[in-house]
Amino acid sequence: MLESYAAGRWYAASSQGGVEGDPLLDAATGEEVARISSAGLDLGAMAHHARTVGGPAIRELTFHERALLLKDLATHLTGLKDEFYELSLATGATRRDSWIDIDGGFGTVFSYSSKSRRELPNDIVACDGDLEQLGRTGVFMGQHVYTSRPGVAVQINAFNFPVWGMLEKLAPAFVAGLPSLVKPASQTAYLTELVVRRIIESGILPEGSLQLLSGSAGDLLDHLGVQDSVAFTGSAHTAGILRQHPSVLHGGVTLQVEADSLNCSVLGPDVTSSDPEWDLFVTGVVTEMTAKAGQKCTAIRRVIVPSAVADEMTDAIAARLSSITVGNPADESVRMGPLASLGQREEVRKAVEALRSSADVVLGDPTATSGFAGDGERGAFMSPVLLRARAGAVEPHDVEPFGPVSTVMSYDSLDEAVTLAARGKGSLVGSVVTHDPAVARTLVLGLAPWHGRILVLDRDDAPESTGHGSPLPMLVHGGPGRAGGGEELGGVRGVLHHMQRTAIQGSPDMLTAITGRWTRGSQRTVTPEHPFRHSLATLAVGDTIVSEPRVISLDDIDHFSEFTGDTFYAHTDPEAAAQNELFGGIVAHGYLIVSMAAGLFVDPAPGPVLANFGVDNLRFLTPVKAGDSIQVTLTVKQMTPRATADYGEVRWDALVVNGDGEPVATYDVLTLVAKEA
Amino acid sequence: MLESYAAGRWYAASSQGGVEGDPLLDAATGEEVARISSAGLDLGAMAHHARTVGGPAIRELTFHERALLLKDLATHLTGLKDEFYELSLATGATRRDSWIDIDGGFGTVFSYSSKSRRELPNDIVACDGDLEQLGRTGVFMGQHVYTSRPGVAVQINAFNFPVWGMLEKLAPAFVAGLPSLVKPASQTAYLTELVVRRIIESGILPEGSLQLLSGSAGDLLDHLGVQDSVAFTGSAHTAGILRQHPSVLHGGVTLQVEADSLNCSVLGPDVTSSDPEWDLFVTGVVTEMTAKAGQKCTAIRRVIVPSAVADEMTDAIAARLSSITVGNPADESVRMGPLASLGQREEVRKAVEALRSSADVVLGDPTATSGFAGDGERGAFMSPVLLRARAGAVEPHDVEPFGPVSTVMSYDSLDEAVTLAARGKGSLVGSVVTHDPAVARTLVLGLAPWHGRILVLDRDDAPESTGHGSPLPMLVHGGPGRAGGGEELGGVRGVLHHMQRTAIQGSPDMLTAITGRWTRGSQRTVTPEHPFRHSLATLAVGDTIVSEPRVISLDDIDHFSEFTGDTFYAHTDPEAAAQNELFGGIVAHGYLIVSMAAGLFVDPAPGPVLANFGVDNLRFLTPVKAGDSIQVTLTVKQMTPRATADYGEVRWDALVVNGDGEPVATYDVLTLVAKEA
Repeated sequence: MLESYAAGRWYAASSQGGVEGDPLLDAATGEEVARISSAGLDLGAMAHHARTVGGPAIRELTFHERALLLKDLATHLTGLKDEFYELSLATGATRRDSWIDIDGGFGTVFSYSSKSRRELPNDIVACDGDLEQLGRTGVFMGQHVYTSRPGVAVQINAFNFPVWGMLEKLAPAFVAGLPSLVKPASQTAYLTELVVRRIIESGILPEGSLQLLSGSAGDLLDHLGVQDSVAFTGSAHTAGILRQHPSVLHGGVTLQVEADSLNCSVLGPDVTSSDPEWDLFVTGVVTEMTAKAGQKCTAIRRVIVPSAVADEMTDAIAARLSSITVGNPADESVRMGPLASLGQREEVRKAVEALRSSADVVLGDPTATSGFAGDGERGAFMSPVLLRARAGAVEPHDVEPFGPVSTVMSYDSLDEAVTLAARGKGSLVGSVVTHDPAVARTLVLGLAPWHGRILVLDRDDAPESTGHGSPLPMLVHGGPGRAGGGEELGGVRGVLHHMQRTAIQGSPDMLTAITGRWTRGSQRTVTPEHPFRHSLATLAVGDTIVSEPRVISLDDIDHFSEFTGDTFYAHTDPEAAAQNELFGGIVAHGYLIVSMAAGLFVDPAPGPVLANFGVDNLRFLTPVKAGDSIQVTLTVKQMTPRATADYGEVRWDALVVNGDGEPVATYDVLTLVAKEA
Repeated sequence: MLESYAAGRWYAASSQGGVEGDPLLDAATGEEVARISSAGLDLGAMAHHARTVGGPAIRELTFHERALLLKDLATHLTGLKDEFYELSLATGATRRDSWIDIDGGFGTVFSYSSKSRRELPNDIVACDGDLEQLGRTGVFMGQHVYTSRPGVAVQINAFNFPVWGMLEKLAPAFVAGLPSLVKPASQTAYLTELVVRRIIESGILPEGSLQLLSGSAGDLLDHLGVQDSVAFTGSAHTAGILRQHPSVLHGGVTLQVEADSLNCSVLGPDVTSSDPEWDLFVTGVVTEMTAKAGQKCTAIRRVIVPSAVADEMTDAIAARLSSITVGNPADESVRMGPLASLGQREEVRKAVEALRSSADVVLGDPTATSGFAGDGERGAFMSPVLLRARAGAVEPHDVEPFGPVSTVMSYDSLDEAVTLAARGKGSLVGSVVTHDPAVARTLVLGLAPWHGRILVLDRDDAPESTGHGSPLPMLVHGGPGRAGGGEELGGVRGVLHHMQRTAIQGSPDMLTAITGRWTRGSQRTVTPEHPFRHSLATLAVGDTIVSEPRVISLDDIDHFSEFTGDTFYAHTDPEAAAQNELFGGIVAHGYLIVSMAAGLFVDPAPGPVLANFGVDNLRFLTPVKAGDSIQVTLTVKQMTPRATADYGEVRWDALVVNGDGEPVATYDVLTLVAKEA
């Protein structure tokens, strides 16, 4: 009997008298692997535990601290993966299928760890976009911020990726400061349960940040409110039921749906069978039909090819498919495993029947129970089925066979290809296989509004392409319409989806206090010692040096031109420079100004400031003419200590003004500064 | 009889025999202003017209071209505003109320015009976020893009802002490439109809980009699909009905809700009656209760103050309220007009009755029909009503009186203040009135997850503050939970909400072709002539100059130190520099490298390149030691011609490498370049 991890302890429904649970059968052998039931679980107590124990513990940590725990977690799980691969066989997964699920899941966690530390501040609030000046004088400013919701992230996962499916939702939620309550699909929940068990045993995540609900979700949604979210991956049918739950309709629960969709792959009209793209197209379709036995929400269901090559392409795909060995994945010769269950096979058979009303089967017999490396009665085996749509076919755009099934259809113009793709009513992903940039642009811009992700495949990117079916942690995963309308992953985007964006209006000083980041117009603290003398331990946001002024002479400008070779006429030719309306005469080089400014603000002796590694948002606002003076003010804007190094980044606000106090240049100076002196 | 503008012509329901329409009465006098009905309108034809005529016409234009039309439109309407102000009286609006609606609406259009031109490319595709390298060698890259949906934006507006409500939805949708189908609330639809009539007469927007539905929305939602959206402003009740429509539940229609909410204003514990913040707080509450007679979705319904000053504050608010003159807004002494209709007044009276179960009326009689500058039987007048919540009050957090009604409640700790605010279950906006930055930080971070916008008000920002109740075009408007969970405005965010975000994977060359922006790793075209010789007319994305190499000598470094005064030890002190692990010896200044690089790539003679106005994303990647050579490659990355100037911006990709070909520095150089030579 699978257990749930609820409110800090493991719970078995069998502890309730008379509960026997539903049996979960090995996909290939039909033998019972486990039983599952959530009878007797107090789901309200789980939500409460997440909000009162897990959430507060996570939100004690900064984004970077949370991200580092994820790295530890992924490292720990990677060390245990043999055990997960072993159990994964029961789900029907081949070694390669398990790799996508298990290593793919850990890779996603690693990616979230590193991206969050690179792109989020080492803080609990994230700023969004630029400061907005709301009035004339700058005393009233606006800044959008993201803050963590004091809620729980409920994650309802599909059966096809019991490991990746959990981790790709858990990682961004955790970085966002949210505890997760994971409900895996029953069919493969034993693998999720094992991974959760290892996570809990490791003690790496704070208690309450991960709970597991094995079995039915019961009345869970009744216990959710405004700050809670439900991320659902699964069928459009179940999504529709969730959308109608009172907590979603009226209770303010955020629902995010990622549903299976009728993804397509389009072959460009430029591709002939002698081009490398021909083979890339065939391989893409065959891979997507057979990986996880086609049980992927991103699999290619619709193969859209030019009419002129439709026969040839259909034959090529069919030929490749017929070499696929189907059977028990424990057998090493097997390339494609069974479907997840006999029930799933029955669903796919029905879908193929529906497709046949406007498409013809070219290859495969969905009803076959023999010819597999294993027992086709007890194991949920099915050979790949390729169909060819008849003219005006309807079903291939509406019926989704969640198995190794695809339908070939043809087009006569790029417009028609786009129209066919759009008939899927919104998909997670589409492929465009072409080596012609103009074809790529037309197809991609036509397909984009209907897709969350588009792969453009050709000979150039093929060596590194991760393929049509693989969501990547740094790219968004989700799609409009039939695909559910949600969006997951996408690097930090996936974190921010879990947070609340709020526009804060206030004085610069208040925005500095609230965001922890120095805001233009806010108070500056001119420190007795030069701020370059301070390590992160003693440096503070707002610490400032105001330099002496320095006159920029014509000699300086001449000399800089000669020295650097930058003899642009505005610096060297008085008459030509006078003709340029922006300058009206000789002006100093922008690079001269920032070089001189550095000369004015730098404190030269060795100290905690280790290096200037960059400059952001440099804008030259007023030309500096010969004889003008410049003066620079440098203020600590943001500090980002690195947990894994003995230094961190300090972003300084630099403001260069001329003798009249007009801004000449503004920019951010980026430095590395030691944590301790 | 109000008309609809449908599929290119004006339509009156009275053209149907026997349709009399519903009467719309002047809020103050009770006289009939107009009748309304949508009987006989073909709503499917309207949606079709938007998709097939309006949308394609808008999407022929770039973001900048769309934005310029909006500027023309706002200028045109501003010239006609007297007519709108005159008619607005019938809605019950005072001059100031009309200013918020009419000038506020035009200001929003102007803001969208300028912000879109500043922050979006002069193109039809917008890139989102950085390029993502997806493989080891850089032949497989990812870029998120936003594209326009080929659908229609249906906008269902509330009665309280018949002008602003339409324009704040229309402007971002139009920039996003979407045609709008506007359905105003009946009660004040005559003012919307007049403005739409003037817009259509002007011919400024392409035909089909704006249609008006006067009257019931009928079966409109049945005609919508995946690429269509509904933006609704109004009651939570109606929002709940829309959420259950099959087109939303199963048809992929995007629904965006902005619902009334129980917004709060919190007084900090630091504020006493002798502080300027005291008066700011009182003024804020009184303004929000009385502007539009409290019929604003952002009005302050809950007044949350420290227990110690609750009595004093209640008295202060009541005193200020009692000086407000209520009556017909045509009377110039009137400070607060009537509610929109007798029906609305009845709703507010019922809400006050409900509030009384846990709050006491301190001021005002909601049932009074006399004491107004106008007839209190026929005009929908009501005096402001202030309540004081009893301990443990429930209704003030749940019942929304959509009129001049607020309830005072008290707290003993900041935690309790946050808890009280959160009991509103999600609001559009909250105010925090304090002069203590620590109090501001605690309250704002506590309130932020429950709010779309927070105003921090004190003596510093008060001179420019636009107040609690005013959504601003550059800040997001919307809120979680009860407030509907939607998000509008927010500058370009409001545009992008209407577009589809898609992750594109492909080779650098393909990404360049699709985005129109040069992608790192993509082909460079070394032009025979220096690219600085080319105007925008002949310059192309990818045009490149590869400079000669130049050796950086120790003399150069010494000289630069002396010349600029930047004598940082890494450039001047061999022993100290050797101690710094990042350098291991004397290195060239970063500013020296970019200055020398400019010397290498600049073509000095006068020509179409007018100025270098900035540098973005400069990163120093490898230290340059004395004797190393540098070489720079400069490539046209993006061109942004300005419709309103004879030049545009060219963003160049700059790559500096050393003698071993290692990247030394990368950055974007920003220049102004003439359109014609």
